Amino acid sequence: MQPLTLPPRLLMGPGPINCYPQVLSAMSTQLVGQYDPTMTSYMNEVMALYRQVFKTQNQQTFLVDGTSRAGIEAALVSCLEPGDKVLIPIFGRFGHLLAEIAERADAQVHTIEVPWGEVFDPQQIEDAIKRVQPKVLAIVQGDTSTTMLQPLEELGAICRAHDVLFYTDATASIAGNPFETDLWQVDAVSVGLQKCLGGPSGSAPISMSGRFVDVVRKRHHVEAGIRDSHHQDAQGQRIRSNYFDLSMIMDYWGEERLNHHTEAATMLFGSRQCAIELLREGQDAVLKRHQMAGNAMLQGIQAMGLRPYGDLKHKMSNVVGVYIPESVNGEQVRHDLLNLFNIEIGTSFGPLKGKVWRIGTMGYNARQDAVLHTLQSLETALRRAGLVLPAGAGVDAAMAVYAGATETRHD
Amino acid sequence: MQPLTLPPRLLMGPGPINCYPQVLSAMSTQLVGQYDPTMTSYMNEVMALYRQVFKTQNQQTFLVDGTSRAGIEAALVSCLEPGDKVLIPIFGRFGHLLAEIAERADAQVHTIEVPWGEVFDPQQIEDAIKRVQPKVLAIVQGDTSTTMLQPLEELGAICRAHDVLFYTDATASIAGNPFETDLWQVDAVSVGLQKCLGGPSGSAPISMSGRFVDVVRKRHHVEAGIRDSHHQDAQGQRIRSNYFDLSMIMDYWGEERLNHHTEAATMLFGSRQCAIELLREGQDAVLKRHQMAGNAMLQGIQAMGLRPYGDLKHKMSNVVGVYIPESVNGEQVRHDLLNLFNIEIGTSFGPLKGKVWRIGTMGYNARQDAVLHTLQSLETALRRAGLVLPAGAGVDAAMAVYAGATETRHD
Repeated sequence: MQPLTLPPRLLMGPGPINCYPQVLSAMSTQLVGQYDPTMTSYMNEVMALYRQVFKTQNQQTFLVDGTSRAGIEAALVSCLEPGDKVLIPIFGRFGHLLAEIAERADAQVHTIEVPWGEVFDPQQIEDAIKRVQPKVLAIVQGDTSTTMLQPLEELGAICRAHDVLFYTDATASIAGNPFETDLWQVDAVSVGLQKCLGGPSGSAPISMSGRFVDVVRKRHHVEAGIRDSHHQDAQGQRIRSNYFDLSMIMDYWGEERLNHHTEAATMLFGSRQCAIELLREGQDAVLKRHQMAGNAMLQGIQAMGLRPYGDLKHKMSNVVGVYIPESVNGEQVRHDLLNLFNIEIGTSFGPLKGKVWRIGTMGYNARQDAVLHTLQSLETALRRAGLVLPAGAGVDAAMAVYAGATETRHD
Repeated sequence: MQPLTLPPRLLMGPGPINCYPQVLSAMSTQLVGQYDPTMTSYMNEVMALYRQVFKTQNQQTFLVDGTSRAGIEAALVSCLEPGDKVLIPIFGRFGHLLAEIAERADAQVHTIEVPWGEVFDPQQIEDAIKRVQPKVLAIVQGDTSTTMLQPLEELGAICRAHDVLFYTDATASIAGNPFETDLWQVDAVSVGLQKCLGGPSGSAPISMSGRFVDVVRKRHHVEAGIRDSHHQDAQGQRIRSNYFDLSMIMDYWGEERLNHHTEAATMLFGSRQCAIELLREGQDAVLKRHQMAGNAMLQGIQAMGLRPYGDLKHKMSNVVGVYIPESVNGEQVRHDLLNLFNIEIGTSFGPLKGKVWRIGTMGYNARQDAVLHTLQSLETALRRAGLVLPAGAGVDAAMAVYAGATETRHD
């Protein structure tokens, strides 16, 4: 029963990452009651902040109380009734996750796949939509399992043309890569805090368009324990989950303030601060900071003679896959980085397990010093593993990226 | 985008309540990675701590990442397959919640009810078990909507005799009222932090017996995205929720450490500290502190001439219902308490709405000073509302309870 004693890790994996210090401070704030006017006014403020984060006018923009996959499940089970068709293009682990969540909801799940390390051409998706005629298209924007970023710009228009709802999971990509809810005509998007937003896992911001909300509202049922005579159930089939029933969560965040769960206030305080950190620095500036750090890491990795994974044209800014050199024990290198330098980089799942490290530059850690420390330490760890590397090539290449950018700014 | 600025409320409602300061501090701790040895060792420690909280040897004791109803839904959807019979004795709002969660899981839900303000005799429950022959008995221990505490001591033996799984939601009661997982033969129990454990909403500790785990394991399926060739699915029907699939959450907390969600580390740090605060003071001492504060509040309320709600023999220690005097506007009194004294007391749901206030003495706030401030302020608010009260009678009666206890300790 000692106080928490954690080592000062620099978290350079695919997430979770180190939180912004201001986010941590916000989470030690003492509570008020869930219907306290100050609390409900902060709930309203959080809705407004995340409308900016998501770049949307959607009224229904709030938090689901759980980790990022809670947001995914809430979106999918609230719109998919048993037997409904959903099309899920899969380009990594999290596409499989969307499919299995939809399967468990007894939706009729249709998937298309590209090899890991690639993304879809919008035409492939439109062809599949024409063939399947789904109610919903569900696709990940950035899949950390492969580091790939699926272009979404054209999918909204395709979905509208075929009367399909367009859901995307932008957990890994939001704030580090462009995302435009309204411009891209996204009907529902959910994220987590633990990547480029610089917070801990445990809260899932979500936003829903009017047409998505209409579908969910058709399944609205009020809980028996708090039902009044004026409550009328909608005609649609009741949503299969109470916890993830977005129609009820809307009632809780909306003017009616109808009790559902007790809001996870500490996570709300953290979510609020994540949005504030993003908006105070500026979304464009944060995006550029991620692109800079990601590019510096990529250039550094390549200058060291290491080979990056996948289609670099479609890599997320905030994570890079690195082939583990054949002569090297990948887990030993990760072990050295952690134990000698307090730096964590990631391993991989599925087909990439044991073959690729994943190195992230996200949120608070999308910083020059974090990139440089990581490259230097990786060089040392690889040298100790017997690899012959050009001394300082990684860190020099990364510094050149930052130096070039600095010059550009002085033009 | 101002820093959080919350008033220093004293939260004397039915929860959430003020957190222990040490819990808030723990939640501002910087993160480590989810598979960092220090993180997994804290996960193991949290399992051990909550075994003590729940008084159990159950290996499968961990956190569900969500509010208390996330724990309820995880327990019910993981054991109930569509068509399975579940018996739910309802004595308040949260009994209705169990029923509606089970209905959404397409279980065959059988309910029995007693009027609000009462609890069940074990014989009533055994009779219903004989009649219904359910797979699961699901019942709330303490229902804050009515302030009642259902005696559970005999239900475990009844369930074993009839081969029924015994689940209970002890969110509102744990730590403020006796709870014995193993002694009472409870098969699954879930709670939240936001009542007598003195933490924020957002984490749901859960514990499961071996026989409950066996039922859940029969439905074990590994996610496609992380499946290896050595993974074999169980024969039972796949659990309908990915997020609440306790068989997968067991894999994540267990030795296999198979990735599921990313653990909500900040909430884990808070949950850990809640358990430590309880165990450091001592479970018996915390129980007595709640009984003392609850009794002082009850005696104070009665001495003021107010009438407590429900069957006082079965009232939870940590919350009391108080009939709103007929001549008084209940919401105006609550408004005065909040705005003049920064004290929150609760309103009520359903049949008690507008008729009963609920006053809690929970966790950090189960303290003499909190009880005295609340009684004094309530007296002032009622006096301002035109009620004629014996001056200081409430606070004097509460002080007498504490004085009597002090004398006893000095014998």
